[in-house]
Amino acid sequence: MARKHRIPRNTLNDHSHEWAQKRREYLTQQTGADLLHTGHYSIDPSVLPGNIENFIGVVQMPVGIAGPMLVHGEHAQGYFHVPLATTEGTLVASYSRGMRLLNECGGVHTTVVEQFMQRSPAFIFSNAREARDFGQWIDEHFLEIKQQAETTTRIGKLEHIMQWSVSKTRYLRFNYTTGDAAGQNMVGKATLVACEWIVKEYPGECEYLLSGNMDTDKKHSHLNMLHSRGKRVIAEVVLKKDIVQKIMKVDTKMLARATVLANTGAMMAGAAYNGPHSANGIASLFIATGQDEANVVESHAGLLSHELLDNGDFYLSVTLPSLIVATYGGGTGLPTQKECLEILDCYGTGKANKLAEIVAATVLAGDISLACAVIGGHWVSSHDKFGRNRD
Amino acid sequence: MARKHRIPRNTLNDHSHEWAQKRREYLTQQTGADLLHTGHYSIDPSVLPGNIENFIGVVQMPVGIAGPMLVHGEHAQGYFHVPLATTEGTLVASYSRGMRLLNECGGVHTTVVEQFMQRSPAFIFSNAREARDFGQWIDEHFLEIKQQAETTTRIGKLEHIMQWSVSKTRYLRFNYTTGDAAGQNMVGKATLVACEWIVKEYPGECEYLLSGNMDTDKKHSHLNMLHSRGKRVIAEVVLKKDIVQKIMKVDTKMLARATVLANTGAMMAGAAYNGPHSANGIASLFIATGQDEANVVESHAGLLSHELLDNGDFYLSVTLPSLIVATYGGGTGLPTQKECLEILDCYGTGKANKLAEIVAATVLAGDISLACAVIGGHWVSSHDKFGRNRD
Amino acid sequence: MARKHRIPRNTLNDHSHEWAQKRREYLTQQTGADLLHTGHYSIDPSVLPGNIENFIGVVQMPVGIAGPMLVHGEHAQGYFHVPLATTEGTLVASYSRGMRLLNECGGVHTTVVEQFMQRSPAFIFSNAREARDFGQWIDEHFLEIKQQAETTTRIGKLEHIMQWSVSKTRYLRFNYTTGDAAGQNMVGKATLVACEWIVKEYPGECEYLLSGNMDTDKKHSHLNMLHSRGKRVIAEVVLKKDIVQKIMKVDTKMLARATVLANTGAMMAGAAYNGPHSANGIASLFIATGQDEANVVESHAGLLSHELLDNGDFYLSVTLPSLIVATYGGGTGLPTQKECLEILDCYGTGKANKLAEIVAATVLAGDISLACAVIGGHWVSSHDKFGRNRD
Amino acid sequence: MARKHRIPRNTLNDHSHEWAQKRREYLTQQTGADLLHTGHYSIDPSVLPGNIENFIGVVQMPVGIAGPMLVHGEHAQGYFHVPLATTEGTLVASYSRGMRLLNECGGVHTTVVEQFMQRSPAFIFSNAREARDFGQWIDEHFLEIKQQAETTTRIGKLEHIMQWSVSKTRYLRFNYTTGDAAGQNMVGKATLVACEWIVKEYPGECEYLLSGNMDTDKKHSHLNMLHSRGKRVIAEVVLKKDIVQKIMKVDTKMLARATVLANTGAMMAGAAYNGPHSANGIASLFIATGQDEANVVESHAGLLSHELLDNGDFYLSVTLPSLIVATYGGGTGLPTQKECLEILDCYGTGKANKLAEIVAATVLAGDISLACAVIGGHWVSSHDKFGRNRD
Repeated sequence: MARKHRIPRNTLNDHSHEWAQKRREYLTQQTGADLLHTGHYSIDPSVLPGNIENFIGVVQMPVGIAGPMLVHGEHAQGYFHVPLATTEGTLVASYSRGMRLLNECGGVHTTVVEQFMQRSPAFIFSNAREARDFGQWIDEHFLEIKQQAETTTRIGKLEHIMQWSVSKTRYLRFNYTTGDAAGQNMVGKATLVACEWIVKEYPGECEYLLSGNMDTDKKHSHLNMLHSRGKRVIAEVVLKKDIVQKIMKVDTKMLARATVLANTGAMMAGAAYNGPHSANGIASLFIATGQDEANVVESHAGLLSHELLDNGDFYLSVTLPSLIVATYGGGTGLPTQKECLEILDCYGTGKANKLAEIVAATVLAGDISLACAVIGGHWVSSHDKFGRNRD
Repeated sequence: MARKHRIPRNTLNDHSHEWAQKRREYLTQQTGADLLHTGHYSIDPSVLPGNIENFIGVVQMPVGIAGPMLVHGEHAQGYFHVPLATTEGTLVASYSRGMRLLNECGGVHTTVVEQFMQRSPAFIFSNAREARDFGQWIDEHFLEIKQQAETTTRIGKLEHIMQWSVSKTRYLRFNYTTGDAAGQNMVGKATLVACEWIVKEYPGECEYLLSGNMDTDKKHSHLNMLHSRGKRVIAEVVLKKDIVQKIMKVDTKMLARATVLANTGAMMAGAAYNGPHSANGIASLFIATGQDEANVVESHAGLLSHELLDNGDFYLSVTLPSLIVATYGGGTGLPTQKECLEILDCYGTGKANKLAEIVAATVLAGDISLACAVIGGHWVSSHDKFGRNRD
Repeated sequence: MARKHRIPRNTLNDHSHEWAQKRREYLTQQTGADLLHTGHYSIDPSVLPGNIENFIGVVQMPVGIAGPMLVHGEHAQGYFHVPLATTEGTLVASYSRGMRLLNECGGVHTTVVEQFMQRSPAFIFSNAREARDFGQWIDEHFLEIKQQAETTTRIGKLEHIMQWSVSKTRYLRFNYTTGDAAGQNMVGKATLVACEWIVKEYPGECEYLLSGNMDTDKKHSHLNMLHSRGKRVIAEVVLKKDIVQKIMKVDTKMLARATVLANTGAMMAGAAYNGPHSANGIASLFIATGQDEANVVESHAGLLSHELLDNGDFYLSVTLPSLIVATYGGGTGLPTQKECLEILDCYGTGKANKLAEIVAATVLAGDISLACAVIGGHWVSSHDKFGRNRD
Repeated sequence: MARKHRIPRNTLNDHSHEWAQKRREYLTQQTGADLLHTGHYSIDPSVLPGNIENFIGVVQMPVGIAGPMLVHGEHAQGYFHVPLATTEGTLVASYSRGMRLLNECGGVHTTVVEQFMQRSPAFIFSNAREARDFGQWIDEHFLEIKQQAETTTRIGKLEHIMQWSVSKTRYLRFNYTTGDAAGQNMVGKATLVACEWIVKEYPGECEYLLSGNMDTDKKHSHLNMLHSRGKRVIAEVVLKKDIVQKIMKVDTKMLARATVLANTGAMMAGAAYNGPHSANGIASLFIATGQDEANVVESHAGLLSHELLDNGDFYLSVTLPSLIVATYGGGTGLPTQKECLEILDCYGTGKANKLAEIVAATVLAGDISLACAVIGGHWVSSHDKFGRNRD
């Protein structure tokens, strides 16, 4: 390809309107694509360094409002209007329907259980025994390592280091709290400094790679399901039998049976989540509120738990073990995203747990709504046939 | 909450500027959030029914251009400028750097291997034997079931039905081809009609739930890794030793070692992907091009494979087993999203395989770039120490 | 080590009493171990070629009888006394207790759903596209491949070939029925011949490895959970509320709650089985009846499913997707093992499905027994506290 | 079934020759099975209480001797003759061949990394917040809990408690060291006492189930892969290129390629182990040495790691994260089993780590032997074709 076909590399970080326009013109000339709408935006591109390079404009992703939804959290309390950025029809309506059900049943209870962000360097040795002994040294020097790591950040705190030996490698997993930031970069820097110190101080020889993939950053993993990456948050509700019948036209006993079927299907499939569609609500909320859009892959994992109570009411909860949310840093400060956070009163410091609770409650709303839709419309049964005894 | 606190439910599907503004005003009044930027958009909301409800405006998600990237696919051929919608700084620059490396090594070869979209009803019986016998009946009546399913769609074709017995339930998984649409709704409708026919015709008694979660829709699963949901697509490159050294400042032998470490870490973690960050490129491309934003959870799964060749060159490939992309329907027709598709010449019918190839190539570019960054910056080693024999 | 320290290699296949004794004497001299009991056996070592090399004697593994157990299978019908070889105290007693419960509730219903044995060669190509095209050729030549494979065996039938593309490799999984043998060797030979034919006939260049580990032989895998290796067999029972209370001192409602807890724990753990201890009964029956003792790793995987019925009765079933059993070949013909098979009337041709049904029923008996023991003894609750509504 | 058809229940624990014979006679009468060989044993049944109930005799499982094998462990040092109880032909010969290769390459290095045995009670609360707060209380009272648990055992030490919140349940995982016993019963008793103390002392209301399946006892789980159940042990060797060629007729470069293929296949399959057949060696050694035969399901999981060195030598290691072995208690004291332990000088206290090292080394021997057999016999390639560049 001839040189003229390229946008000059050294302009990558020029976010001015002028360069955005030049790039669009270049693309139009190269590809024939008319970029009128992409070039239509109100944000001041000078806010963009730190969020994008080679800026050409924006995608206008439609936002709908679901709710309001009543949340009884420790951080989120009251009614919330939930902005969902999506292009999937019925999604907002369905989440709204679920929220209405939750409200009429008294609202959602939410609990943030724990929160960590990780970086997982891998240290390599000549043999397994050296790797094991190194691990012991790490345990013995935790306080010094913590001190080193925390020199790089006012906010991040190194809480503990998990360790695994595989062959002649020692995988460490540094677990930090990171305040209201998601913290991936913060913990990366901190761990780098800690690792450099370790290499310098460790009496034996060792090499390391800053990430040996046990973080596990930007991918779902069973490890993250067990040892939270981001926040572990739980949303619970007791659905009244009568209200479910009235709003959803579904019997709670039928709901319980369908949930067991779906749960078993998820186990057979080896699924990251056993409910209907956590990813929809999370992705839409993430895009609306300037979260790292790729983190939906870690965040959508979880467990939907239910219990049919003696009186016919239906306890339902969702446990999201690795929900990664931030209320400052990253994309949260961009104009539209900040506005969406402000709709939830979730912009800035001290708000991340609140946002986490709202996300979990939203997932619960969407899951009960879709579950009832599938059952109500498509569960073909004139009688209660299964569950009876064989003879 | 008082009734006045709600936006009237019956206006949910009114996409006019007026109602968008009324909703924003209501939200501002309720929450204090100023929604100036959210209300700034150029798209005509009358295009939005089918994509959103309770529309209030848009999120302006910044778009950067990565590339160009040279692709030698069966559908995508030539240089492509790749629009990435993201708020994560360095992402566009890093993908661009990877693309430059790929180009200098001759470009990426891409192959679409297969493609299916699924709906998985669960049929329930009185006991396991009935469930098994039902399965045999399904096999025997496949052609009639196919005929029924295809009455609902011009495009979707039912290719085969997989089956699993668990307890007294028979899980079916209907596999369709769906042309250039992602097809989740298409296959839902088709399967519903097929199931109704089955229930009517099957000589025994049975009930069903339209989805028993073995689809597995909107979540990662090992099943999807094995039996593609969406397209199974592979991107390959042979990286020249000298060029990697020149552009990335990394030795391919070091690269091979680091890749093995990360691979092992991913296995230990039980990760959905063993490379650095497939989700980043996929999420950014999905948002830019109007894909269902939640499908990144299925799509990010995969395997990064490598081989250090005798001459020091480095074969690298990514296999994405469940990449869900569309070039019409859903959000692809929204103005900015359509423009981004047009940058890639990927809008409309006959383009979905092309888009799939571009996504896979983009993932490859991003992964090699991040891998080299981690190694180049943070692999602390003055000597080639590991790999030597013990004595 | 000096040469004299070795038992001559060329006597490896001499199974005579004399060589067994010489080897024992050598070991006693080398290690001080007295091998009196090991040398005490009644079997004629001339039956052993094909089962062992470098024979020194036997392990005397104690056998206890559990049951009788009432089975209503398609192959196993009536009461069975189940021989369990184990050294774990209480195991036989516990399984017996479970069988008594099953009997009093009317016996166990068993169903063999499907059965396959696999060999999974991996074919390697220059690139992904060649690998994909090869896959199509395989589909088109299935009948010829089947014919080739079946030249090596009177019994084995090649039923279908599954395929997966990863990078430039095409993994095939040949699925055979193998009659009453487990069939691992049978399908290995057949697949080798088929592969040789493929390499000869395929117009392109290819190489292969006879097993690329997607069999997956001698290890648990999620793939085997989905696509049965061995027999997929299900055992079901409806436990009467009163009888559970009488024999087990456990309320079925409590049993349901505990089962949900254990099920959730298994999902969190990423466990191969969600019930209490399928492996115990399977291992003990396998050793007693001359099954390949390592196959317990594939065979123990499965799903325990339950349903609390309206009348308080408790439906319980176990689905074992990959139960590998044989009634001839391998160790089944050794004297004690054959005797144990004869206790079950399961020796010889036409009996493998029967044995599979008995194993599944035995697992069900053991699981309900242990579950009740854990609940009855250790569930500390004076009141029915959980499950109530919050307020 | 008539009452007379039963062996009296109250004789279950009578291990006398007389009752064994009566039971055999009864079985012969009921089933026609001749139990001559089963009744032939030299062990004194009075040693059996604690190992079996309803004793009828023994299975004579043939034992072959593999090796000797040179081990450089911290606990196992020198040459070992390894007794393998199996009915699978070629198994002993194949392991022996592998051991010969290991010996000629200088022997195997083994390392025990850590060791724990678990019991995992689940505590249930009214809601998620109570469950979380309980978890904090557990952390604060660890020392008292430890003290309580250790009242029941001289040997077991409670080292740490892991915790997980799911819905309104708090899963604890008590991790103990258990000396040279496997310790499942030991930790069960200790945890029961600890739980009773917790319920009594905890200020809030709670109920518990002694096992919520996160142990995970008698089943493979990803959790056990991460957090060792039993011993985490690693065996390593550097295989000399020339010696592999001489003994195995295989080139190490080919070996490396095949290992990568098998590794990828295992990842695709979601396998518990990525090598050829850990379960074979483990099962055979377990039966020979009186280990709990069902524990092979936990023990066979692991990772085979390799590295092709610059000089063509081949580093190979196996990491077994959950190898459960004992050298006293359980079946280890039975006469033949004890003799087999004595062949390895592994009977009694202070020997469990030694046995663990021998098992891991044995697995390594078996895996390299089978891998080379598959490659040597069946890798059809006249030229080194793959791995070359495409053009």
